[in-house]
Amino acid sequence: MPHNIAILGASGYTGAELVRLISIHPSFRIVALTGDRKAGQPMASVYPHLRHMDLPDLIKIEDLDYAGVDLVFCALPHATSQAVIPSIPQHVKIVDLSADFRLRNGADYEKWYGKPHAALEMQKEAVYGLTEFYRDEIKGARFVAGTGCNAATGQFALRPLIAAGMIDLDDIVMDLKAAVSGAGRSLKEHLLLAELDESVKPYSVGGTHRHLGEFDQEFSKIAGRDIRVQFTPHLLPATRGILLSCYLKGDAQAVHDTFARAYGDEPFIQVLPFGEMPAMKDVRASNFCHIGVAGDRIPGRVTVVATLDNLTKGSSGQAIQNANLMLGEAETAGLMAAPVYP
Amino acid sequence: MPHNIAILGASGYTGAELVRLISIHPSFRIVALTGDRKAGQPMASVYPHLRHMDLPDLIKIEDLDYAGVDLVFCALPHATSQAVIPSIPQHVKIVDLSADFRLRNGADYEKWYGKPHAALEMQKEAVYGLTEFYRDEIKGARFVAGTGCNAATGQFALRPLIAAGMIDLDDIVMDLKAAVSGAGRSLKEHLLLAELDESVKPYSVGGTHRHLGEFDQEFSKIAGRDIRVQFTPHLLPATRGILLSCYLKGDAQAVHDTFARAYGDEPFIQVLPFGEMPAMKDVRASNFCHIGVAGDRIPGRVTVVATLDNLTKGSSGQAIQNANLMLGEAETAGLMAAPVYP
Amino acid sequence: MPHNIAILGASGYTGAELVRLISIHPSFRIVALTGDRKAGQPMASVYPHLRHMDLPDLIKIEDLDYAGVDLVFCALPHATSQAVIPSIPQHVKIVDLSADFRLRNGADYEKWYGKPHAALEMQKEAVYGLTEFYRDEIKGARFVAGTGCNAATGQFALRPLIAAGMIDLDDIVMDLKAAVSGAGRSLKEHLLLAELDESVKPYSVGGTHRHLGEFDQEFSKIAGRDIRVQFTPHLLPATRGILLSCYLKGDAQAVHDTFARAYGDEPFIQVLPFGEMPAMKDVRASNFCHIGVAGDRIPGRVTVVATLDNLTKGSSGQAIQNANLMLGEAETAGLMAAPVYP
Amino acid sequence: MPHNIAILGASGYTGAELVRLISIHPSFRIVALTGDRKAGQPMASVYPHLRHMDLPDLIKIEDLDYAGVDLVFCALPHATSQAVIPSIPQHVKIVDLSADFRLRNGADYEKWYGKPHAALEMQKEAVYGLTEFYRDEIKGARFVAGTGCNAATGQFALRPLIAAGMIDLDDIVMDLKAAVSGAGRSLKEHLLLAELDESVKPYSVGGTHRHLGEFDQEFSKIAGRDIRVQFTPHLLPATRGILLSCYLKGDAQAVHDTFARAYGDEPFIQVLPFGEMPAMKDVRASNFCHIGVAGDRIPGRVTVVATLDNLTKGSSGQAIQNANLMLGEAETAGLMAAPVYP
Repeated sequence: MPHNIAILGASGYTGAELVRLISIHPSFRIVALTGDRKAGQPMASVYPHLRHMDLPDLIKIEDLDYAGVDLVFCALPHATSQAVIPSIPQHVKIVDLSADFRLRNGADYEKWYGKPHAALEMQKEAVYGLTEFYRDEIKGARFVAGTGCNAATGQFALRPLIAAGMIDLDDIVMDLKAAVSGAGRSLKEHLLLAELDESVKPYSVGGTHRHLGEFDQEFSKIAGRDIRVQFTPHLLPATRGILLSCYLKGDAQAVHDTFARAYGDEPFIQVLPFGEMPAMKDVRASNFCHIGVAGDRIPGRVTVVATLDNLTKGSSGQAIQNANLMLGEAETAGLMAAPVYP
Repeated sequence: MPHNIAILGASGYTGAELVRLISIHPSFRIVALTGDRKAGQPMASVYPHLRHMDLPDLIKIEDLDYAGVDLVFCALPHATSQAVIPSIPQHVKIVDLSADFRLRNGADYEKWYGKPHAALEMQKEAVYGLTEFYRDEIKGARFVAGTGCNAATGQFALRPLIAAGMIDLDDIVMDLKAAVSGAGRSLKEHLLLAELDESVKPYSVGGTHRHLGEFDQEFSKIAGRDIRVQFTPHLLPATRGILLSCYLKGDAQAVHDTFARAYGDEPFIQVLPFGEMPAMKDVRASNFCHIGVAGDRIPGRVTVVATLDNLTKGSSGQAIQNANLMLGEAETAGLMAAPVYP
Repeated sequence: MPHNIAILGASGYTGAELVRLISIHPSFRIVALTGDRKAGQPMASVYPHLRHMDLPDLIKIEDLDYAGVDLVFCALPHATSQAVIPSIPQHVKIVDLSADFRLRNGADYEKWYGKPHAALEMQKEAVYGLTEFYRDEIKGARFVAGTGCNAATGQFALRPLIAAGMIDLDDIVMDLKAAVSGAGRSLKEHLLLAELDESVKPYSVGGTHRHLGEFDQEFSKIAGRDIRVQFTPHLLPATRGILLSCYLKGDAQAVHDTFARAYGDEPFIQVLPFGEMPAMKDVRASNFCHIGVAGDRIPGRVTVVATLDNLTKGSSGQAIQNANLMLGEAETAGLMAAPVYP
Repeated sequence: MPHNIAILGASGYTGAELVRLISIHPSFRIVALTGDRKAGQPMASVYPHLRHMDLPDLIKIEDLDYAGVDLVFCALPHATSQAVIPSIPQHVKIVDLSADFRLRNGADYEKWYGKPHAALEMQKEAVYGLTEFYRDEIKGARFVAGTGCNAATGQFALRPLIAAGMIDLDDIVMDLKAAVSGAGRSLKEHLLLAELDESVKPYSVGGTHRHLGEFDQEFSKIAGRDIRVQFTPHLLPATRGILLSCYLKGDAQAVHDTFARAYGDEPFIQVLPFGEMPAMKDVRASNFCHIGVAGDRIPGRVTVVATLDNLTKGSSGQAIQNANLMLGEAETAGLMAAPVYP
């Protein structure tokens, strides 16, 4: 029996990606799409690539009738999400793709986002949506908060190593390369093709990127003490994808063994043979994450490189993976399409 | 019941695209992959993006056991295909993706490809694989020859207009923009990123592109007399996609009406509202073709723009669409995934 | 003796390109830069690539002291230019890069730009800035209006052919491919890297592009009767450059001969050997224009392809070429740097 | 008086870049160009962007007449250079752009390049071509060996810090992002646009990149003891440019001060205001290197980011800078053109 799905904020990139993925999902049926500024328009006028689909027109959130809706994907901008989610009726399950409910306490939220959280009660209810590590909680949850795309990449690269005590926790260096769609369909000068093509540039240097809040929360929880990683993202001349290079201190072969054990049964996490490195393009438009491990000429150093598609595994694919669990479907339903290459 | 599929030439881009599409096909099962130069290797070492799939290793064509194989996709290089196909056992259906069997008579083949055809008997048997226009023949065929990717684009843009007598047949100008993957995974200087990035360049100017053989054959057949179009392709700094701009003489509104009638029931051909134009990215990695029609300030002129993904609708997607028909499946099986955007 | 140069609107792409070109000009000295929204900022904060230059800070136009200024490049947005230029003191020469003074009569301006011209008297004074064809007028002019970048490309491709009666004037088809910088540093959704990368799309279809006003004006003047060309631009995933493919009726060899005669002595216009085609990248960041000519398998058809860099030869380079003439310098001064390749 | 210049290996990218830079050099005159596989061809047929220049045709090296030649740029492939250079007559000065003479002793060369050096005597004569640090030796040298492009970037980022004892020498992590032209005009699968566009991938991981030999040699020399840096390059979907992110332990403000002192008078090295980061595009096609410094939320950590154009400051521009000194010209002659942006 199909599940009735509504998407709030369907006019953004993660909204469009949800629709794309649902186009081949065996049991999800889209019954409502909201987009405040585009309300009244057919989805095909906002995203012509969806022209062939029989989709409801965009409506305002306040016009959404939740009767009959089984699950809502909330792809609203940060801050808007916390204003909307508390009013969703209790019979509706929720997967939030915004940053609003990723941090577990109000103080952390305020530190990284610069203002008090408006829905602290809901924040407590939210289950952190990194499926591979919160599977059981997600299965029983009504409300799941998806991870940040950079935060997901970093956690796939480091969680098993921290948990197994495989690396020096006080010397973690992460250099991330991110395509532009992570910034959404937003009109900012540095996202113009003319500004970025044939270029690359660091941003949020010095430990100021908001996804660090998630690293701090999760890594410290695993380690049982405060962990602070060094993390510098760079903007790439590409549309989709994240590739993260981690420079760590530990035994490379043991690190690789740890990954093999941790991810051996995971359908979406692929650990490459020792010494091989992934390319960002190898996971394009898919729900897969590839991880490579190599040693270094300097003994005791290990390089871990992880890559995923920010819009899929980093956001909308992860959201569907969680929704599958929440609705009693196979976790992989609708998500096994191979990456698009070349 | 699943159909057992073999792919000859699986190490090329169209071979990899077939595997990608079959990764979500409900009833196709890959039982053999050949790749002469890569024989013995796992597919994941040639195409790491397919790492998660449980695929047979690449073998040599001569080591392929056709017992139990229902259908072969032949993604071999041009000229190799005609050497291999005649020896495929009769119980196996064949979809050829090469250029070898697209032209119906030996003289035309020799004119455009510069040497005599080596399998003239098979050439007669081959059904031309432009599904939307050869559906009935394809359903009953054992052997289908896929169209060229440029040729498919041009035919979607012009066949209904020629058939309906909507345009001046002696003044057809076609300016095509093609991404590089149409040239395959081949080591040629002009395909290097450094040579093509931030550039665009005409090639095969003056009416020398081989896909003109298909235009001549098909358009002349429809019109009942010789038709010669003017066709100039340009190479784009992009990986996938073709966008074709046709400058025609006729009534723009009547042209749009003709398309609406011809393609109204086609699942993969989308005719845009009058005056709207498609973007190449709107069909990326999908089996869809978008067509736009606009008039001009000069009365009696009409511009038709068609776009598709050369590796999907222009090649491997089309091949699966044909195989679906040949094997009694729904024509759209495994092909309805929405385009990847952005 | 150096000439004192002011640039109005230095915070846009054509303004920055003027500064770049002047960085190696032997006799131009920048004495003032205006940029209303960025007034007070150093140029290096708006354009960090100019950090090494000793440049004046950006100021408001009304704070510009024209005393001692020999020539002003006016790189203001369209419509702003006509408001500012009339108030520039008479001792200052002016090269305008906007669209405001390209059309010679008020009715044409109003037709293409949708409102009455605010400085009709100045419009009459303006000399059209296509140097190769207005050299003598430019030498003696106080006020020169630079051509549009697309308009320049089209005129280099067609003027000698129209003048020599080499082509059918009623059947001129122009398919233009343009990089994004022609649209300036403006925040528009379709200029985002995520929207355009790996894509191409027609725009201003149907004969609605404003540069058609220039074609109409100039081609009709040469032919002595009304000429209307068919012109369709397409947006490319690239930063700089225009490549224009013209589909014409005439004798290809005679067309090539006509170009050879017309451009044989031109320092910046390079006519390729017959049958060879230019690539957009071959003129990158330079003041050169490359033109290729080929015949077609259809007798009497000829394809002319012209390419130039929209920011250099199409705008700021052309402006300096004109300023050189107006100030008595060698026409090529500061402009002979080879294109940047790859 | 002009200096007569010959370029050996003019058909590669660094050869073409030398020609481009010399096109605006006030006192260099190209008298010979060699290119063994392209011998007999005009340069314009190998590099159409140089069509406007009056250049000698390509010849074989053995046909080069050294009489009257003042200086040779040797842009030959690695290993070829050491076979050719010993036979160049003594009156000719030499700037080598290959890797052959960068390492000072034969053992190091054999370690990194896998075979014995064929010209050990010449190796001793070669002056290391990092102009800013070997200026005096270069002025008096007959033979200068240009640095590797990655090696140059890393040295601009680290030399002053190592010399001043500003950072922990045992914990230097370097993550480099490189455009493809550093690999030359070579037919390799991973350099195809279809393979790399929309991607990024690490290569030479684990401390195996050959430019490490230069880091080891130079950094150890400065420090007076063995220094081993951790260095991982990544291939970018871009044509030109290198951006290097260094993760270091030290005081960020003191690091910035050290750069300000070291590079305050350098014409080509630009140190950004504290906390600002450079973009790769900001130095495109120029001889400039931009360096940014930022602290981190973790006390005692500092991030240094340096960027330059691999073909210009990393190779051919550096070569001309050295040649200027060797020939008694101003060091900046012909090299002050502003970067190309956007």
